[in-house]
Amino acid sequence: MKKIISQATIDRLPLYFRTLRLMESEEIKIISSDELGRTLDITPEQIRKDLATFGQFGRKGIGYDVHELKERISNILGLQNCWRLAIVGVGHLGGALANYTNFASLGFSVVALFDKNKSVVGSEVNGIKVNSISGMKRIIASKSVDIGVIAVPADEAQGVADLLVAAGVKGIWNFAPIKLNVPSTIPLVNEDLSIGLSALSYHMSQES
Amino acid sequence: MKKIISQATIDRLPLYFRTLRLMESEEIKIISSDELGRTLDITPEQIRKDLATFGQFGRKGIGYDVHELKERISNILGLQNCWRLAIVGVGHLGGALANYTNFASLGFSVVALFDKNKSVVGSEVNGIKVNSISGMKRIIASKSVDIGVIAVPADEAQGVADLLVAAGVKGIWNFAPIKLNVPSTIPLVNEDLSIGLSALSYHMSQES
Repeated sequence: MKKIISQATIDRLPLYFRTLRLMESEEIKIISSDELGRTLDITPEQIRKDLATFGQFGRKGIGYDVHELKERISNILGLQNCWRLAIVGVGHLGGALANYTNFASLGFSVVALFDKNKSVVGSEVNGIKVNSISGMKRIIASKSVDIGVIAVPADEAQGVADLLVAAGVKGIWNFAPIKLNVPSTIPLVNEDLSIGLSALSYHMSQES
Repeated sequence: MKKIISQATIDRLPLYFRTLRLMESEEIKIISSDELGRTLDITPEQIRKDLATFGQFGRKGIGYDVHELKERISNILGLQNCWRLAIVGVGHLGGALANYTNFASLGFSVVALFDKNKSVVGSEVNGIKVNSISGMKRIIASKSVDIGVIAVPADEAQGVADLLVAAGVKGIWNFAPIKLNVPSTIPLVNEDLSIGLSALSYHMSQES
């Protein structure tokens, strides 16, 4: 049975996961919701509520087993699937994503790169060959790509999304600042780097 | 009096801001929470609740004045400050950030770049000269840098944060996957690209 979980909770799970992974690397075995809350600036009540959504975690008065909780969250997030990514658009951002080591530590791997620019096609980024967009359908099938990453300008993004869907990707991660139309069966996450920066601006304004 | 506003609300404000700015450029004068909700894929109730946090906006049965609402959100987010950024670490990610055009559209500008790599120092990225880290204090003062952006590997990030704080930045935007210690008077926002990707993984796991 699938429960309905709020988007806000889902957005917090990777934060928990990342913090727990860090704690595990520091050989911390047990963590209370109070400590986790202090680290993440989230109330302990919120943390207990979030985790309770997925069943019984932790023991009252003792805390959570760091390794166990990390593994459970990994399973909830589907990180055990070791999703395979293709990045479309190998400009500055696409190149940075192709080199972003954090993905690998969560089990994601970049397996294909595409660009429309002939001067880039055929070159390698982080050991991965850049292909032309015309070969997308064939390569996405042969490399078993799960996730299409859109790192092209806004006016090219919908076209790329259509190509990725037609090529059979199971999800889309969009960095172009535009609302994309994709079938409702294809999960879509929009990433906007200026959101974090705006939040920082907000907090800086509160300080002055 | 400063109200406590949830992080989730703060994170939605830049989305509202960007949409309203687009609407203003299309000469739309009035927008209802229904229309804004449809555009952003957020419920009208959520939008009304978010905006009510900051006081009385809009008129029942008529809608929100696009220009007025945009200006109010800009003020809430502190975007009128036109913050000046310095990026430390001009690798793939730092280079992508230096070229990210979305920042300028929100009033942020990148005014300085730093790297420890001698082969990069002296070169230009997007018209901005890359300086050596040793010149940081002087250049951050002379260029009136407000925000330090950390785009170096995790094991160098705390050292860079210390240098940025000593140089007098007012806020830090951290891309290194590590928890930094900075004075509580210096707002810190951690950016982790794998959070959005993890949320996508969750949704894809629910589909299968």
